[in-house]
Amino acid sequence: MSQGTAASRTDTTSRLAELRKLMAAHNVEVYIVPSEDAHQSEYIAPVDARRAFISGFTGSAGCAIVTPSKAALSTDGRYFLQAEQELDSNWELLKQGLPDVPTWQEWALREAEGGKNIGVDASLISAAQAKSLAEKLKNRKGGELLGMDDNIVDLAWGEKQPKRPKEPLRILGLEFAGKPFEEKLVTIRNEIEKNKGLGLIVSMLDEIAWLFNLRGNDIPYNPVFFSYAFITPTEALLYIDEDKITEKVRENLGGNVIIRPYDAIFADVTSFSEATATNDKKLLVTSSASWALTKSVGENKISTIKAPIEAAKAVKNETEVQGMRNAHIRDGAAQIQYFAWLERVLLRGDIYDEVSAADKLEEFRKEKEHFVGLSFPTISSSGSNGAIIHYQPEKSTCARVEKDKIYLCDSGAQFLDGTTDSTRTVHYATPTMDEKKSYTLVLKGHIAVARAVFPKGSSGFILDILARQHLWRAGLDYRHGTGHGVGSFLNVHEGPIGIGTRMQYNEVPLEVGMLISNEPGYYEDGQYGIRIENIVLVVEKKTPNNFGDKKYYGFETVTMVPMCKKLTDPTMLDEDEKKWLNEYHTEVYEKTQSFFKGDEYTLEWLKRETSPI
Amino acid sequence: MSQGTAASRTDTTSRLAELRKLMAAHNVEVYIVPSEDAHQSEYIAPVDARRAFISGFTGSAGCAIVTPSKAALSTDGRYFLQAEQELDSNWELLKQGLPDVPTWQEWALREAEGGKNIGVDASLISAAQAKSLAEKLKNRKGGELLGMDDNIVDLAWGEKQPKRPKEPLRILGLEFAGKPFEEKLVTIRNEIEKNKGLGLIVSMLDEIAWLFNLRGNDIPYNPVFFSYAFITPTEALLYIDEDKITEKVRENLGGNVIIRPYDAIFADVTSFSEATATNDKKLLVTSSASWALTKSVGENKISTIKAPIEAAKAVKNETEVQGMRNAHIRDGAAQIQYFAWLERVLLRGDIYDEVSAADKLEEFRKEKEHFVGLSFPTISSSGSNGAIIHYQPEKSTCARVEKDKIYLCDSGAQFLDGTTDSTRTVHYATPTMDEKKSYTLVLKGHIAVARAVFPKGSSGFILDILARQHLWRAGLDYRHGTGHGVGSFLNVHEGPIGIGTRMQYNEVPLEVGMLISNEPGYYEDGQYGIRIENIVLVVEKKTPNNFGDKKYYGFETVTMVPMCKKLTDPTMLDEDEKKWLNEYHTEVYEKTQSFFKGDEYTLEWLKRETSPI
Repeated sequence: MSQGTAASRTDTTSRLAELRKLMAAHNVEVYIVPSEDAHQSEYIAPVDARRAFISGFTGSAGCAIVTPSKAALSTDGRYFLQAEQELDSNWELLKQGLPDVPTWQEWALREAEGGKNIGVDASLISAAQAKSLAEKLKNRKGGELLGMDDNIVDLAWGEKQPKRPKEPLRILGLEFAGKPFEEKLVTIRNEIEKNKGLGLIVSMLDEIAWLFNLRGNDIPYNPVFFSYAFITPTEALLYIDEDKITEKVRENLGGNVIIRPYDAIFADVTSFSEATATNDKKLLVTSSASWALTKSVGENKISTIKAPIEAAKAVKNETEVQGMRNAHIRDGAAQIQYFAWLERVLLRGDIYDEVSAADKLEEFRKEKEHFVGLSFPTISSSGSNGAIIHYQPEKSTCARVEKDKIYLCDSGAQFLDGTTDSTRTVHYATPTMDEKKSYTLVLKGHIAVARAVFPKGSSGFILDILARQHLWRAGLDYRHGTGHGVGSFLNVHEGPIGIGTRMQYNEVPLEVGMLISNEPGYYEDGQYGIRIENIVLVVEKKTPNNFGDKKYYGFETVTMVPMCKKLTDPTMLDEDEKKWLNEYHTEVYEKTQSFFKGDEYTLEWLKRETSPI
Repeated sequence: MSQGTAASRTDTTSRLAELRKLMAAHNVEVYIVPSEDAHQSEYIAPVDARRAFISGFTGSAGCAIVTPSKAALSTDGRYFLQAEQELDSNWELLKQGLPDVPTWQEWALREAEGGKNIGVDASLISAAQAKSLAEKLKNRKGGELLGMDDNIVDLAWGEKQPKRPKEPLRILGLEFAGKPFEEKLVTIRNEIEKNKGLGLIVSMLDEIAWLFNLRGNDIPYNPVFFSYAFITPTEALLYIDEDKITEKVRENLGGNVIIRPYDAIFADVTSFSEATATNDKKLLVTSSASWALTKSVGENKISTIKAPIEAAKAVKNETEVQGMRNAHIRDGAAQIQYFAWLERVLLRGDIYDEVSAADKLEEFRKEKEHFVGLSFPTISSSGSNGAIIHYQPEKSTCARVEKDKIYLCDSGAQFLDGTTDSTRTVHYATPTMDEKKSYTLVLKGHIAVARAVFPKGSSGFILDILARQHLWRAGLDYRHGTGHGVGSFLNVHEGPIGIGTRMQYNEVPLEVGMLISNEPGYYEDGQYGIRIENIVLVVEKKTPNNFGDKKYYGFETVTMVPMCKKLTDPTMLDEDEKKWLNEYHTEVYEKTQSFFKGDEYTLEWLKRETSPI
């Protein structure tokens, strides 16, 4: 594209050559490089970006597989365009979900036929994934699945690999956390008892941060810290580099928590399980536990349960809910300042690229109370870059923001009282009929989710069609989910809930106090991207009846940023949709206007953008 | 209720006493009486109505369990009211799906604790159900699950048990079936080969009828015949009482099909499996195969596959599709005559009860070409009886049809060219505001399904919310699915598709040529019932775009009967909904008006009911 693209290609030839040497030395013919770190994190620290190092593909999801002569990268629809731009000719792209495209497992199994070994770092793959792969490998008459202790990508990377961060921890006060960690421990110990477990091994970083009311700074955008936890009926052990524990943190944890070195978890659970585990009394893990962990305990001394901390964390307490509302109002004010500013500078002809625009947005956010940092890299994308669903502009290659093109901005921040994430799609000149039609179809889907009422017990799975129905009628769709759970000053993506077609979303009913994104979109490759994203809170709805004494639930929108009226075709909205939009805009105005005292320009912009249609 | 209720209570005391004697003699402490026959049929012949005999509950679904001192009956939401009315005090009702109510399996397991045996006729329970129950029984430290050859309810029933029917078969000509049975055999043999099977055992009666283009008369309302089939790469064996095979049928089957006695299936598959089955080459069954069948083959010589005949049968060929359209036009004409007649007689003060009204509807249907019989007992229900979802009026006890009450009529017929099933809810005087509101909410849901557009690959599972969304907004719901597959001159309920919350519906994408019902409802206990049901055909939709080259599907409504305008509140319909309703009514008028030549009254009624709102 003439404005340059954000993605750039890395020559992976020499890296692959080095890795293949190490594969041969380790007797591995097919080597798997997962995207995740040892904690199955979605976002990772630079030290753990092994898949990006070996493949050149920098998206947040995907798996690389290397054989002596081939290399393949499997990723999902959000990243098809980006992967095509970033992968060099050493790599074959496996587009997940497209017909006749093998999954990475299928591709690896095919390559391993005839007795070849598949290797993987045992700490980077979940026990369930390893088990399933090993079984299939056996059925296909491949060799062994080797769970390796050494990571051979690290060996190939050598001195250039970044160092593991050692940032000090921060205590999240009760005024933000809402519940002392001792109370949370009681809840979790009840779950351990209910599951007849000897103890629970915790490896997800956000679960540990939530449980102990601690926050860290080890992974960009995610206020977590490298650690494991092991909770028994009588003890709570936190495995972490001691450097990160300040005196204040140690005091706060008091005698309730024993600090142990990060790597000691493996030996500790081995000796604990040898001393105590029987056929009836086992150690509990969740499905995200690594193969390295379950091997340490012993496969027959492990019982895998539904993650109790994830489930407890998903339902926000009253302090967290109020914090999220407040954080979203402050965040909304920053976005309003930004979109008003952007209109002014673009219309007067100033030149900003996608990165410098995003920097300005960060400035507005930084001024707000309780701001800590961004919750993910801002997706600031003009025109066709908006069609790259998880586009990340880079200073050297990014495009100019053009007033005549659709501008999509997906951004969020970490505040002490909440995590924000929202997307607005705007246009500052004259959008085409086609652009308005697409935007309004997406808006109708967004409103359908926002207005939905459903009986208690319903899951996000069944709501997905509400977001897509209007696009489908036009023969349009989008290749990503409609919603993800959001943490409370924690990860911007958190489980177990979601709105979308993943079957696991159907297993978790939406509960009052859960927060989830509502983000339908539409992407016209090479032209533009549209996404409209708010965070919504599950609330009980007052309905005129209460059939079956079920209770009926719905959403309260907490994101406070106007929609783009210029892109909305009011003739495509029905009365209920218009009513929702006008009421939402009134609320946005009322909740944010106090931030713009003395900023007449922004206030006027807000008045205009939130006036009734 | 003052008008009497259709349901009557049977005193089961002596029947239970007799059964309990037999249980003791067979060393069984917990005895299960399933609803199904040996073919897992939903509708059954009177000879197989063992659960109704022992419990007194006559609904089509439910399971009875008897212990030396207790008796329980488990059924689903459609039948809660009916079961309460029919069960005597010997019985405890287990309401499926309500919180804290055990399933029949849980109830049986609890009663079997402490080493007690559970008994069941092995031909009346599927192999999968038996396996799951036996495993749980073991875990709960119960006794054995005994798969019995004798049916002890039959023994208790004695001479009063009806005889097994032996009606002659009828050949379904190519002008109705659309495809010779030899071609269908080729398709199924391909599936056998694909699944590496030695042969396929078929026990579902509608699958056998469809496969051989034969119809029978053994089960009321279902044109099927008692039989098994066994298909191998070279042979097709039909197990059936020879009395049913006319000379013409034998000629038609020719040398392609070997006729064997009905009961010979068990010995035949035993010797076949002993002679041929190995670890790699197995006999194929589907999940509906009885435990008696899989025991005959040997559990380790069986492979259970997705039913290939059910899948093939669900996608109607062009002849069947056209037949279904034609049958529904004729059936619609009969219903139009009926609803017009009913209005006239009620308004002039004639007295009809629910049964005599339904008889009149049957008369109108009988006059139509290709009529064979009803496809299920007509649900003709006035006022509060409409709230009993699968109500069946009985002459002696049924209510009068009152013009001042909502009248719900769910009915259908078997024609040589198709099976019909539709529900209309009407009112002939002045409905209350509440009745109109409820009706219109149901209608909005019905229209939302009828108008839905969805990408190829979508299942009926995801469409369910479209039917319920408007009711939910009012805090209302209904306790049944939204849609079921329909046979082509076959069973009115057929798998594998459906619109609803059963997970198995999510496993089968809707394909062009499938027929399914669209039947949301609302039931106000003690007041009225509302259901609006049409049969719809899956068709490809012309959309302005075709994102992802997916193809977009939707429905063509084939049922041709006006909705009730008197119950519709037009102010609750949006423009799209009104447009759909007016276009539907225009189509109903155009396709049925030719039936009413010389019947000015009906034609005027039709004109009035199909005029635009």
